[in-house]
Amino acid sequence: MMEQILSKDNKNVKEYGKLISSKSYRDQNGTFAIESIKLILEAACSGVVFQKVFVTEQCVKKNPAVLQKLFDLDCPVYQISKAVEEKMTCTQNAGGLFAICKKLDKHRQADTIVPNGKYLYLAGLQDTGNVGTILRTAEAVGLDGVVISAGTCDIYNLKVLRASMGSAFRLPIFFGKDPASDLEQFGKRFVTYAAVVDESADSVLQTSFAPNSMVVIGNEGNGLEPRTITACQKQITIRMKGNAESLNAGMAAGILMWELVQN
Amino acid sequence: MMEQILSKDNKNVKEYGKLISSKSYRDQNGTFAIESIKLILEAACSGVVFQKVFVTEQCVKKNPAVLQKLFDLDCPVYQISKAVEEKMTCTQNAGGLFAICKKLDKHRQADTIVPNGKYLYLAGLQDTGNVGTILRTAEAVGLDGVVISAGTCDIYNLKVLRASMGSAFRLPIFFGKDPASDLEQFGKRFVTYAAVVDESADSVLQTSFAPNSMVVIGNEGNGLEPRTITACQKQITIRMKGNAESLNAGMAAGILMWELVQN
Repeated sequence: MMEQILSKDNKNVKEYGKLISSKSYRDQNGTFAIESIKLILEAACSGVVFQKVFVTEQCVKKNPAVLQKLFDLDCPVYQISKAVEEKMTCTQNAGGLFAICKKLDKHRQADTIVPNGKYLYLAGLQDTGNVGTILRTAEAVGLDGVVISAGTCDIYNLKVLRASMGSAFRLPIFFGKDPASDLEQFGKRFVTYAAVVDESADSVLQTSFAPNSMVVIGNEGNGLEPRTITACQKQITIRMKGNAESLNAGMAAGILMWELVQN
Repeated sequence: MMEQILSKDNKNVKEYGKLISSKSYRDQNGTFAIESIKLILEAACSGVVFQKVFVTEQCVKKNPAVLQKLFDLDCPVYQISKAVEEKMTCTQNAGGLFAICKKLDKHRQADTIVPNGKYLYLAGLQDTGNVGTILRTAEAVGLDGVVISAGTCDIYNLKVLRASMGSAFRLPIFFGKDPASDLEQFGKRFVTYAAVVDESADSVLQTSFAPNSMVVIGNEGNGLEPRTITACQKQITIRMKGNAESLNAGMAAGILMWELVQN
């Protein structure tokens, strides 16, 4: 028999809400909040440790096999009312399933990366959908890992996790600080490439990437800061045709990763 | 002196709203509605014909040069109140500028394409952001054009136009009907490639695209229908690594277009 939560003011429901909305609360607690059957199953299959699960009666009836897996996780499972579900739901197709999980301890500080392999460094990306899509693409094309600068949106943001389709749980992810300082340090161990929109930079098509490569992508609106570009050893670009000013940051990152793993 | 619109029930404001929300109303009138200074300037520079412009007093004050361009367009310009602006605004950063424009007459039926060049066929894509990003990427990488099937979301949808960053006004775009029937016809004049998630298909990396190539992308959730795949001459795929099930449809299309123009 599951414990029931009927009040939107229940402390666990409030905790869930704070974990959804506040990065500092996530950092402080070392936990994060997710919703939807698909994402929660991806988390469970990726070894994420669950602290609390919340489920509607309807979800239990519709997905007995899924719920059995969650009961096996050995964490409290609460049955929530329709009103509580409405309060907790943030995105489409949450499907009446929510969880609080522990952050992965495999996510490490940037200076622990072994300087061998192909990496992407995200310097100040702000769009949660872009960051999630980039993580999903990084896993699909076979990148060795992604570094997230201090100013990039939190990978434990629900929208990032959903857009990543679970890749955020599986891909080696490292946490950096200030891009320029990080890249000065990385430059001692990696060949560092600043991705720029600049006709005078080397075309990505003519670039033979070193076996220890780090490609740096900037913010959606402003690109990379000049001092971050200066901190990198090389500059590369995707040559544009037509009148298109630039590619979407997610798409540019996707094409760069694609070339990075081929060459 | 501009004519003022102070009522949300003004017939021009209502027409704008209907053009934003209804594809059939757009089709019936041969017009579409857009907002934001950036997109409206892209339209003006791309030869789009304007029927009506709506602007707030604040926008006129902040952007005198932009407005001068619009006054030169020789179409009625209405000054709208704050309340009307709120009613008309659909997306972020509309900035108090709105317009009703004529659809471009350079957009043609699919059977008019000259069978030479590299084309993308969108078969039933439903996400407006994906379709806009694909059009933006198609222009940037130098594709010859994009064909839109009957079931793909309307390119005159405001969200498509905004995500395309104006590429929808500049790129050659053609309108198809049912994907399987279209591709049977195209197969007589193009080499047609169905993009599939299938390990037995040819890797896009090993594909030498014909000078008259058409690559076909399916719906975000369901991919291509079997009969559409059958109607194509070849099947190609992006080989995945890791546990990523698939790429986002926009990203997959981007990588395929990138390879299509290189090879």
